[in-house]
Amino acid sequence: MNDDSISEIEHLIALMAKLPGMGPRSARRAVLHLIRKRALLLTPLAESLGQVAASARECLNCGNVGTRDICGICTDERRANGEICVVETVSDLWAMERAASFKGRYHVLGGTLSALDAIGPEDLRIPRLVDRVASEGVREVILALNATIDGQTTAHYIADQLEDQVQLTTLAQGVPIGGELDYLDDGTIIAALKARKQL
Amino acid sequence: MNDDSISEIEHLIALMAKLPGMGPRSARRAVLHLIRKRALLLTPLAESLGQVAASARECLNCGNVGTRDICGICTDERRANGEICVVETVSDLWAMERAASFKGRYHVLGGTLSALDAIGPEDLRIPRLVDRVASEGVREVILALNATIDGQTTAHYIADQLEDQVQLTTLAQGVPIGGELDYLDDGTIIAALKARKQL
Repeated sequence: MNDDSISEIEHLIALMAKLPGMGPRSARRAVLHLIRKRALLLTPLAESLGQVAASARECLNCGNVGTRDICGICTDERRANGEICVVETVSDLWAMERAASFKGRYHVLGGTLSALDAIGPEDLRIPRLVDRVASEGVREVILALNATIDGQTTAHYIADQLEDQVQLTTLAQGVPIGGELDYLDDGTIIAALKARKQL
Repeated sequence: MNDDSISEIEHLIALMAKLPGMGPRSARRAVLHLIRKRALLLTPLAESLGQVAASARECLNCGNVGTRDICGICTDERRANGEICVVETVSDLWAMERAASFKGRYHVLGGTLSALDAIGPEDLRIPRLVDRVASEGVREVILALNATIDGQTTAHYIADQLEDQVQLTTLAQGVPIGGELDYLDDGTIIAALKARKQL
C-alpha cells in the first residue's frame, strides 16, 4: 500500500471493481484471493482473459458471442429446423441453452426498442431478423422477450414486421415451477388464471 | 454455447466463478460485460492480471503483499518509528492504511492460532515478529487482531512472548463512529461502558 511497489496491485483492484456486482471492497478481496492462489487461479485467469480478448466476437448472423465470425449454433446444420428464437441479450440465449429444450437457432436483438433511449429497429438487428426469416426458410419465430413494457413493445413491433411471413409464438406465461402463489405478483396470477388448462 | 467456439468463454466463466463473492450467474454477467467492454476493461484487466501474476509476492519482512521482496512500508525509513502494528491479514493492513493514521510498520500474521485447524505459532510468522522486535528497535507492538475468540487467543499468545521486551497495546473497543446503540451487540455496549471516558 505504498509507492510504485503496490501500484500494479492497486491498478488491478481498480479494474476488478468495475466488474458488475463488484465494488472496491469485494475487488480487494478478490485480488488478495487471486494472489494467494497464483498458480491455480491468477495465472490461468490472466491467460484466459487474454485469449477471450483476442478471439471473442459477435456472430454476424445471430449476435451470439463466440470466437468465430459465425457461431457454433448458426453453423450447426442440425439446428436449421425452421425455428428461430428471438431473445434480447446473449445472457437470455445462454439461459435458453442451459434449459437444453430448444433445438432451433437464435436471434439476439441486443436490447429492446426504447423511445426514451432513442433505440430504434436498426439498432437492434431487427432488419437482419427479417432477412433471415426470408432466407433461412424459417417456419416459426418464437419471441422470447422479457415481460417488461419495452420487451413487449419490441415483440409487438417484430410481430407487425413478420406477421404474414411466418408463424409467430411467444413463451407461455404462468406460475414458475416451484413457485408459491403467496410470493407471486398479481400480474402473473392473472396471466396464469387466464391461460388455465383442463386437467 | 456450442462446441469449441464457445469453450474459451465457458472456461473464462468457470474461472471467474471461483472468485470470492462470485458464482456461475454473476461470472456469466461479468464475462459478457467484459466482452462488451473489450478495449476499456477486458484487455487492460488481462494485462494487469498478467503483471500481478508475474510480480506479486509477500514481503519477506512483514508479510504484506507487494511487487518486491521487501515491501514499500518496510523500506520506508520514515516508518521506522519504533511501532509495529500486528494484523491478521493483508486486508486488515490495507484497512489500517486507508485510515492513514498509523505511521509505523506492520506485521501480517497470515491468520490466527487455531487448535481446530492445527495452526501453531510457526505457521503464523510469530517467530519472525519476535526477531523483528529484537532487531528493529521496536518500542511498541499494537495488537490489531480481530475481536474473535481465535484473534484474542493469538493476541494473548503474542503478549506472552513479548511482554518483557516491549510495550504492548491493543485497539480500543467501543461504539463505532456513526454507530447506533440500538443496532450494537451487547458485548460492544458492555465494552464501551466499561471503557467510558470523562467528558
